[in-house]
Amino acid sequence: MQDMHDKAAILMESLPWIKRAWGRTVVIKYGGAAMTDESLRHSVAADIVLMKLVGINPVIVHGGGPEITAYMERLQMPVEFVDGLRVTSPEAMELVKMVLVGKVNGDLVSAINAHGPLAVGIAGDDANMIRATQKDVRLGRVGEVSAIDTTVVKNIISDGFIPVIASVGAGDDGGNFNINADQVAGEMAAALGAEKVIFLTDVDGLYADFEDKSSLISALTFEEAESMLVTGALAAGMLPKVGACVRALHCGVERAHILNGTIPHALLLEVYTDEGIGTMITGEAKSLGLDDDAVYTAYEGEVTL
Amino acid sequence: MQDMHDKAAILMESLPWIKRAWGRTVVIKYGGAAMTDESLRHSVAADIVLMKLVGINPVIVHGGGPEITAYMERLQMPVEFVDGLRVTSPEAMELVKMVLVGKVNGDLVSAINAHGPLAVGIAGDDANMIRATQKDVRLGRVGEVSAIDTTVVKNIISDGFIPVIASVGAGDDGGNFNINADQVAGEMAAALGAEKVIFLTDVDGLYADFEDKSSLISALTFEEAESMLVTGALAAGMLPKVGACVRALHCGVERAHILNGTIPHALLLEVYTDEGIGTMITGEAKSLGLDDDAVYTAYEGEVTL
Amino acid sequence: MQDMHDKAAILMESLPWIKRAWGRTVVIKYGGAAMTDESLRHSVAADIVLMKLVGINPVIVHGGGPEITAYMERLQMPVEFVDGLRVTSPEAMELVKMVLVGKVNGDLVSAINAHGPLAVGIAGDDANMIRATQKDVRLGRVGEVSAIDTTVVKNIISDGFIPVIASVGAGDDGGNFNINADQVAGEMAAALGAEKVIFLTDVDGLYADFEDKSSLISALTFEEAESMLVTGALAAGMLPKVGACVRALHCGVERAHILNGTIPHALLLEVYTDEGIGTMITGEAKSLGLDDDAVYTAYEGEVTL
Amino acid sequence: MQDMHDKAAILMESLPWIKRAWGRTVVIKYGGAAMTDESLRHSVAADIVLMKLVGINPVIVHGGGPEITAYMERLQMPVEFVDGLRVTSPEAMELVKMVLVGKVNGDLVSAINAHGPLAVGIAGDDANMIRATQKDVRLGRVGEVSAIDTTVVKNIISDGFIPVIASVGAGDDGGNFNINADQVAGEMAAALGAEKVIFLTDVDGLYADFEDKSSLISALTFEEAESMLVTGALAAGMLPKVGACVRALHCGVERAHILNGTIPHALLLEVYTDEGIGTMITGEAKSLGLDDDAVYTAYEGEVTL
Amino acid sequence: MQDMHDKAAILMESLPWIKRAWGRTVVIKYGGAAMTDESLRHSVAADIVLMKLVGINPVIVHGGGPEITAYMERLQMPVEFVDGLRVTSPEAMELVKMVLVGKVNGDLVSAINAHGPLAVGIAGDDANMIRATQKDVRLGRVGEVSAIDTTVVKNIISDGFIPVIASVGAGDDGGNFNINADQVAGEMAAALGAEKVIFLTDVDGLYADFEDKSSLISALTFEEAESMLVTGALAAGMLPKVGACVRALHCGVERAHILNGTIPHALLLEVYTDEGIGTMITGEAKSLGLDDDAVYTAYEGEVTL
Amino acid sequence: MQDMHDKAAILMESLPWIKRAWGRTVVIKYGGAAMTDESLRHSVAADIVLMKLVGINPVIVHGGGPEITAYMERLQMPVEFVDGLRVTSPEAMELVKMVLVGKVNGDLVSAINAHGPLAVGIAGDDANMIRATQKDVRLGRVGEVSAIDTTVVKNIISDGFIPVIASVGAGDDGGNFNINADQVAGEMAAALGAEKVIFLTDVDGLYADFEDKSSLISALTFEEAESMLVTGALAAGMLPKVGACVRALHCGVERAHILNGTIPHALLLEVYTDEGIGTMITGEAKSLGLDDDAVYTAYEGEVTL
Repeated sequence: MQDMHDKAAILMESLPWIKRAWGRTVVIKYGGAAMTDESLRHSVAADIVLMKLVGINPVIVHGGGPEITAYMERLQMPVEFVDGLRVTSPEAMELVKMVLVGKVNGDLVSAINAHGPLAVGIAGDDANMIRATQKDVRLGRVGEVSAIDTTVVKNIISDGFIPVIASVGAGDDGGNFNINADQVAGEMAAALGAEKVIFLTDVDGLYADFEDKSSLISALTFEEAESMLVTGALAAGMLPKVGACVRALHCGVERAHILNGTIPHALLLEVYTDEGIGTMITGEAKSLGLDDDAVYTAYEGEVTL
Repeated sequence: MQDMHDKAAILMESLPWIKRAWGRTVVIKYGGAAMTDESLRHSVAADIVLMKLVGINPVIVHGGGPEITAYMERLQMPVEFVDGLRVTSPEAMELVKMVLVGKVNGDLVSAINAHGPLAVGIAGDDANMIRATQKDVRLGRVGEVSAIDTTVVKNIISDGFIPVIASVGAGDDGGNFNINADQVAGEMAAALGAEKVIFLTDVDGLYADFEDKSSLISALTFEEAESMLVTGALAAGMLPKVGACVRALHCGVERAHILNGTIPHALLLEVYTDEGIGTMITGEAKSLGLDDDAVYTAYEGEVTL
Repeated sequence: MQDMHDKAAILMESLPWIKRAWGRTVVIKYGGAAMTDESLRHSVAADIVLMKLVGINPVIVHGGGPEITAYMERLQMPVEFVDGLRVTSPEAMELVKMVLVGKVNGDLVSAINAHGPLAVGIAGDDANMIRATQKDVRLGRVGEVSAIDTTVVKNIISDGFIPVIASVGAGDDGGNFNINADQVAGEMAAALGAEKVIFLTDVDGLYADFEDKSSLISALTFEEAESMLVTGALAAGMLPKVGACVRALHCGVERAHILNGTIPHALLLEVYTDEGIGTMITGEAKSLGLDDDAVYTAYEGEVTL
Repeated sequence: MQDMHDKAAILMESLPWIKRAWGRTVVIKYGGAAMTDESLRHSVAADIVLMKLVGINPVIVHGGGPEITAYMERLQMPVEFVDGLRVTSPEAMELVKMVLVGKVNGDLVSAINAHGPLAVGIAGDDANMIRATQKDVRLGRVGEVSAIDTTVVKNIISDGFIPVIASVGAGDDGGNFNINADQVAGEMAAALGAEKVIFLTDVDGLYADFEDKSSLISALTFEEAESMLVTGALAAGMLPKVGACVRALHCGVERAHILNGTIPHALLLEVYTDEGIGTMITGEAKSLGLDDDAVYTAYEGEVTL
Repeated sequence: MQDMHDKAAILMESLPWIKRAWGRTVVIKYGGAAMTDESLRHSVAADIVLMKLVGINPVIVHGGGPEITAYMERLQMPVEFVDGLRVTSPEAMELVKMVLVGKVNGDLVSAINAHGPLAVGIAGDDANMIRATQKDVRLGRVGEVSAIDTTVVKNIISDGFIPVIASVGAGDDGGNFNINADQVAGEMAAALGAEKVIFLTDVDGLYADFEDKSSLISALTFEEAESMLVTGALAAGMLPKVGACVRALHCGVERAHILNGTIPHALLLEVYTDEGIGTMITGEAKSLGLDDDAVYTAYEGEVTL
Repeated sequence: MQDMHDKAAILMESLPWIKRAWGRTVVIKYGGAAMTDESLRHSVAADIVLMKLVGINPVIVHGGGPEITAYMERLQMPVEFVDGLRVTSPEAMELVKMVLVGKVNGDLVSAINAHGPLAVGIAGDDANMIRATQKDVRLGRVGEVSAIDTTVVKNIISDGFIPVIASVGAGDDGGNFNINADQVAGEMAAALGAEKVIFLTDVDGLYADFEDKSSLISALTFEEAESMLVTGALAAGMLPKVGACVRALHCGVERAHILNGTIPHALLLEVYTDEGIGTMITGEAKSLGLDDDAVYTAYEGEVTL
């Protein structure tokens, strides 16, 4: 009986956070072990369902590096990276899309829908949602987001579902592009006017010195994060995440978080407890010295035939 | 840190119950110490707010016996009961309404609104919502529910608010009636097609033998509850509650609960944990031998000038 | 038969005024004998119902001074005024709210609903509609309007009902404040963007010299009214009314009227006949020399948890 | 001043009738002197506008016999009647439509719109609203209503306007038919589920003996009206009106009225005073011995290309 | 079989034009032989129906000169023109309206509705849609558009119908005005924010030299069209059309077309094939040197009683 | 110029078919060469876009046998069929889903979206849309449709998009099932209440004797098709198609078509020309001797968590 009262007290403790987060949109970049470990995947899915039911609008964005590499190796396709980006031939692009849209996306949709008919998987080329352009000719079908039309995502949210988005884009040439999922998450958060964007990864957050595990940073400002992008203080894997954080904050997102997705219920701890975990970046767009053309261009709702 | 993970696990434990209750309407008869003790009142208000934010539509119904008696005594008005019902002269009715609508209702509205603009207090005579007829000429302005128009309550719910209803009714003679709040809660649950009705009281539930505190009943069927109404097995204070439970179940409400409101977070424990507390009554309307004219007549939405 | 034709002609005469007023919102401060005299109350209620049915959206605001004093005296509580404002201890505030919300409000709601399910009574603290701050520490729980959230009032109007508002406010300390109903009426008219605000009182209007009953003023400008506030030309009871008129006109309300509510059907005569009665104040906000921070701050629709 | 109070009292006297009629649909067959006399036309238009503004949904149906005859004579076309019905050659049909749709309809629309943008004129062939079939080959383009699609009329009402309908119909052969406006009014009332249908004519109502002006009937039942159709008790001009009344009542319309439109404000007197004028027919569809296939077939909302 | 494949290929050829025009509003001034020749009328009606079904919102505007003259002559009324405009006495105005609203409008409505319940005919004075003022006292009831309220037209479109508008206007004196239909079409296109306005006439378009049939102009700019208005290069019948084109383009309409309506399916050829026919005028409002008060004043949606 | 007029005439010829099909839902089973041949795929995509723009609501369903086999062979997975159904191990199911959802679906979405943002790809497990159960334990993850929730499909249609559905289903065990796309198309048509279902294949339709190419059947009844299912008159590949046709017709779909998708614009020819192509099956559900439990159970809109 005492145990029951303790539980009730803990539920009650979440009330202020539920009030604070109610009705907000949160973009979650899903990646790392949370994606490949089936048990973690189901745990993260349950967290997302709970967030949805208590009033948050989660939007999931994912890539799928390890699965892509595994299938490329099974098919004896060359696996090559330049500056951390996968060289993506047209043949590889076909496989990238199959793995992202047909496997990783479906796995997460299934994990969420084990709780009820809540998730709808979409690819970035559905209704030409994510437009992309080639990033570097040497990388082949690797693209960058050039515009986002949020019509379909907003419809899915307002219909009561959770959109799960595979990070491929539609090129003007009719082909697809393989886009870094961190970038897609940051741009999607910006285009949706989300309150926050969360990056699930396998490390505990940002380190002042990434060789020193005791130097974890709990919170930092936009400017501090921006300066880390240029000082070499960041691990290679963190560069696109921090870049996406800075970009999203620059476009009006209020907070960005980098969390360790292998911690059980990391999302809930971040959203619904006082202490929080991982690294939080906050910012004031007004104080930025970025030039004007860096401003986000969301072609939201603009549809031409 | 371990502590945080325990908390997350407990939040997660509530997921199945949140899923089950999401979008449902629950009528809560608020009474007893939970109403008069300010600290308990704030605790119950927080529970109600949490229920609202995680997807339930709570509807609150209250009476206010002790406060009425206290004010009557201050004004040296005679306090008299017949068969447990307050003899209510027209002068007393004015005071009853003042206390219910102007004090008890407002106190609960304030307790809820400490969390945000969520509660809207209404009296049973707003828009002639609760129509009543005299119960017994010896009791004066004591009434029984004759019809309920749920238009205003449903509008308040769909506008995103929590209705808090004082148990007075509108008579055909233009005057008000003092109605037992247990009855109002049962009828309101029936008229709204609520999933459940909960009676907050000061005892732990129904006892097989109300003299024997070890005989608490966790669950019983509709038929068993009905037979208790006639066998004298019930304490006097429980008679109207069990009568209202039977009536509500008869009209399609799925479950009725009698809880001890002095247990901290009793509402949450009932709704969001496995074990539950108090006494639960369930029923099948089809098997009932009640005669037809006992069927509820809700004039829902039917408005004549 | 001739009589019938005369009646039809008189109905017809009202057509231009019905056209002019159709669809407009009119805030009516209900007070004086019209509130305490039951026969007058029913007459005013009928006028309000007729206004509603022919296309106006009436919003009723009321205080309840005499009834409060009567109950305080019955309970032997001290009755004291400073500068015409009731000193309101926390104990008195409880009684003030009981009388306003539980008696006066209900009486008017009942009078209107004798014609059909039309009126919904609300208190200023429902959904934290009227926010208030303490006016003067010596007066205790006497407050001033600091912000109005019109969500609930507008919902009630658009649902087809007549809101009847008791002039209490919600303080940031969780307690209630007793607010002058004239002020509430003026601020509510401003927050709703009402076309006009009408003050029902017991005198025929404003007098150039309030000692000289022959000096009744039919119409005056905003500037003239404003100067009367400072020249001592106004009776004490008129000061808050004229102040509220000036404030409402300053915030965009087109016309303010001060009427004698003891004249049968004074509201109809004002709204639906050529001649009108009482005193009308009109104004041009643009020409005002008031400083900027006097501008109304309506937190309409802004709801934070 | 006394005069003002008398007026207010008379306005107040209309309250019960306004309440009773509020939100109801009333079909008005406009004809006789009220149509040809410009002064009467403006008076009737004002009555209709007043009805609209105080909550009734008037729907106007008109023919235009005298104007048609006048134009036919100006154009030296033969004017011939068989059993009271105008023989309508295709050439005459063109003129009939011009006069009904282009003159009579427009004159009434203009008279109403002198009060504001309220009336929208439509012909029975707009959107194939009134489908008609030939009545009698000897009569040429004289038709009978075979089906009514109320889509356009209901849209006009819900858009806040007053539909003014010229009694022509669309034939399956692509041509128009000239339909008796009394029949159109009765069928339209039936198809719309109107509360009442009113026939404006030049006599005071039905007479027990139409030669005896003292035998005016104030009220009669459906069965009595039906029997008058066969006993020869009716004047020729009354036959189609009483037939349309019986038909409309048979299809669920509650009341039919035959009024003298030359009485100033006859419509208002009928709707908003106690005494009423003219003849009222009421009925109970259930008691009728008519065979089933007489039941109305409204193809309401059914649109095929 | 080959034939079928050719047909499919031609349907396919229209895809780019259907995509381009989908969801756009096109105002069509219907006139000339297309109006008086029954076979052409049915052909144009079919074109309009096809346009509607494939996603365009056509709005039809028409006059009716020849039919008016014919009826005036039959009635031996004087037919007189000043500067190409019909002198319109009040008696003539009655006939003008009868012919336009009761004959020409109905004929086109019937031709369209032969395909299904699609067209709703309205006159410019329905709901005071087209307000007009007298153009020249010598011309009597000839008017100019002073304001357009598009409420009724937009309602008809959004209800799924095709509005067919007769070019009469409502004067402030309660009477009607006869307005040049070219002007009405141009102003209506401007008020609706239409994408294009098309003038159906009996010649192939504009000629550089109207005496030289080989000098047909396929396309010209706004400025070129404007200069033709003053240089005398235009045939008299083209002056109001080109004036209306310039006016519409000046108010934001993107393109104006002058087509020969006697060419079978001229509308389809213009809208759905590459080559187009007739003369197209395009413009940039920004570069215009017209003075400010020439800007269109659409009282769209503004309804005062 | 003559050429232009011929084109217009052909466009006009499609009017009756556009009228007939406007607003209807058509389910298209996309398969065979039309799926694997890129040029044919773009041609079919253009046909679908044209159908959408002219008022039809196409819903696309696809499988992807050849691509699945090709990838299985590249990965050296065993390819085995039993009774024409692919033995699908859990490993194979992963690949099946990757190919269907990540490749075939995306290819068709891209082909359609080359015309604008029109197609949204979904898998049968999105929002648990298609529920499935195991068909035969020997076949592994091969499933049969047990229920369809059309919520997501209908939302996509009403948002203005074309749903493209990959034929995988969600099992109660949380895993996916590989379902025959013909069956999915038939069930989806039934669940949506579609007007027709079209099967695109590589042969010209049904043959009376499938060895005799001259025995093509243009039209047959439901009963005839049903009897072909049991007489062995059908080629193996036709069995599931004809079975799906019979099932869809049994559930209220009006017509089923089997077309040769390699014929250019076969969809347009079927929908928009008189002659039609392929085989059409029509039926009357009422006359069927099928037992009751064969009736379709669409859990449309029924969502339980």
